[in-house]
Amino acid sequence: MADIESSFDDSSCFSPQSPGSLLTTKRRSKETTITINCVTFPHPDTMPEQQLLKPNEWSYCDYFWADKKDPQGNSSVSGFEDLLQKQLKGKQMQKEMAEFIHERIKIEEEYAKNLAKLSQISLAAQEEGTLGEAWAQLKKSLSDEAEVHLKFSSKLHIEVEKPLLNFRENFKKDMKKFDHQIADLRKQLASRYAAVEKARKALAERQKDLDVKTQQLEIKLSNKTEEDIKKARRKSTQAGDELMRCMDLYNQAQSKWFEEMVTTTMELERLEVQRIEMIRQHLCRYTQLRHETDMFNQSTVEPVDQLLQKVDPAKDRELWVKEHKTGDTRPVDIEIPV
Amino acid sequence: MADIESSFDDSSCFSPQSPGSLLTTKRRSKETTITINCVTFPHPDTMPEQQLLKPNEWSYCDYFWADKKDPQGNSSVSGFEDLLQKQLKGKQMQKEMAEFIHERIKIEEEYAKNLAKLSQISLAAQEEGTLGEAWAQLKKSLSDEAEVHLKFSSKLHIEVEKPLLNFRENFKKDMKKFDHQIADLRKQLASRYAAVEKARKALAERQKDLDVKTQQLEIKLSNKTEEDIKKARRKSTQAGDELMRCMDLYNQAQSKWFEEMVTTTMELERLEVQRIEMIRQHLCRYTQLRHETDMFNQSTVEPVDQLLQKVDPAKDRELWVKEHKTGDTRPVDIEIPV
Repeated sequence: MADIESSFDDSSCFSPQSPGSLLTTKRRSKETTITINCVTFPHPDTMPEQQLLKPNEWSYCDYFWADKKDPQGNSSVSGFEDLLQKQLKGKQMQKEMAEFIHERIKIEEEYAKNLAKLSQISLAAQEEGTLGEAWAQLKKSLSDEAEVHLKFSSKLHIEVEKPLLNFRENFKKDMKKFDHQIADLRKQLASRYAAVEKARKALAERQKDLDVKTQQLEIKLSNKTEEDIKKARRKSTQAGDELMRCMDLYNQAQSKWFEEMVTTTMELERLEVQRIEMIRQHLCRYTQLRHETDMFNQSTVEPVDQLLQKVDPAKDRELWVKEHKTGDTRPVDIEIPV
Repeated sequence: MADIESSFDDSSCFSPQSPGSLLTTKRRSKETTITINCVTFPHPDTMPEQQLLKPNEWSYCDYFWADKKDPQGNSSVSGFEDLLQKQLKGKQMQKEMAEFIHERIKIEEEYAKNLAKLSQISLAAQEEGTLGEAWAQLKKSLSDEAEVHLKFSSKLHIEVEKPLLNFRENFKKDMKKFDHQIADLRKQLASRYAAVEKARKALAERQKDLDVKTQQLEIKLSNKTEEDIKKARRKSTQAGDELMRCMDLYNQAQSKWFEEMVTTTMELERLEVQRIEMIRQHLCRYTQLRHETDMFNQSTVEPVDQLLQKVDPAKDRELWVKEHKTGDTRPVDIEIPV
């Protein structure tokens, strides 16, 4: 911040000038400043060299000094307004991302619910032996899978959706505050510019009056006129002083606005970096959770695979025969029981 | 098969005996056979050593010779019937597994549909710069994920559900054929056993008649009686021959039933091994497809991860500022344009 302020001080390279010198200076062929919407810039034809406050950083504080014409109407929008709009849009994007994640959560929950339900269905529950075991595990694996997806959705909710939704809760309020601050300073600048203009006109009238009276003195000398000239000169000097005072107040207001603009746009910039970092971080968490889900999912099938390796028709036959056999004595030829 | 038949031949260790020797043999203290539901087994008290046809294999052909009492009623069920029931149940289990897989397919389709739909929703579509790119890829990854699950469901349908459903299409018909064959042979056995019993009774009557006449001869000798005895002896011999013929037919029928039982139960055993192997194979395919799905799923997140790595707030600011900047000339103090 100290850097900025010193840069700012450097850039205000116009030292106060005494009104006398100003007024007595020969008319310059070119004006050195131009005032647009009450903000005073160096004149394009006599542009002084201005170093960017934060060169190579594309900092907001360097690029939004001018106002922008509304493409539709003639009303102009301040550069700061544009920046605010970006911030509010960013906040909106973040909210929509949270909504998107919320939809994903609902899909995962639905999927998990369906898998769990299917896992409970008693289809082929009477399959026996090693095949029966493998089958039961296959069904159980669905409830494990459901668990994995449920965990995914719950972590998405806590670790992605909520942070995205809650990050900068009072953001809009803060933006409104910034908006009012900057707008108030611009209004003050405008009213002080109007005062400068008024003082400038008054001075011009006083100078014209003094000129007229001076000519009158040349034509017909009289005490009365000399008194008038003295009075007119005094009034002209007073008008000059007033103009200087108004210009001073105007410059103070512009300086204050300038400082606030720099401070606030840099704050907006910091918030935008923070927003992007935060979103990046939580979307990374999303992909990480997705990876974990796939990994855990794989582990749900492993016990099924193991039991499928052990499926053995001979073993199953042995188990079934042992339980169901009716008799292993083979028939023999009939004999006459004598 | 040759092995079985030779085993079977070995087991039929009862050589034909002449009816004469049978009839004249002294009554043995113990009977050597016992007939249950028209099937003749060695008598428990004089059980000969019987090697299993397929020792250590728990083969169906060794353990289902006796009938089984129905636990509710008094009706008995043949061992073969039990085996058939197992086969039909196996077929039913297989069908239910196919149904289960079908439900899984529907769940995957629904999940894929929801993911694809969400991927199309334009939430946060206006996010800009590198973050906007990462976000767009994150949304696209959902449609890739949907594709993966759709492929999973389609492969489940073609490579698991259909084979499980279609394997042994005519199975029930084949089982019915086996059932009829074995039942018919058992019926034949029963009718031939009845014939043996009838012949046995006839012989007993003839022998009794011969005994009576022989006693009569001892008491009062007469030509007439001697003629009667001759006739009675002839009739007794004829009855003995008839019994031998009936026993022979019975043994033939039992032998045929035995052979058919061995052949058919071994066929059922082969089919059951085939069923288990087939199911095992297709459930392995299921787990394999699940693994592939998890793997492909992981790959859908990789491009998102890559773009998230590249998210850079400074870059995004540069892009946005370049497009939206209103002016980088800073305001200066107002000067009196003289």
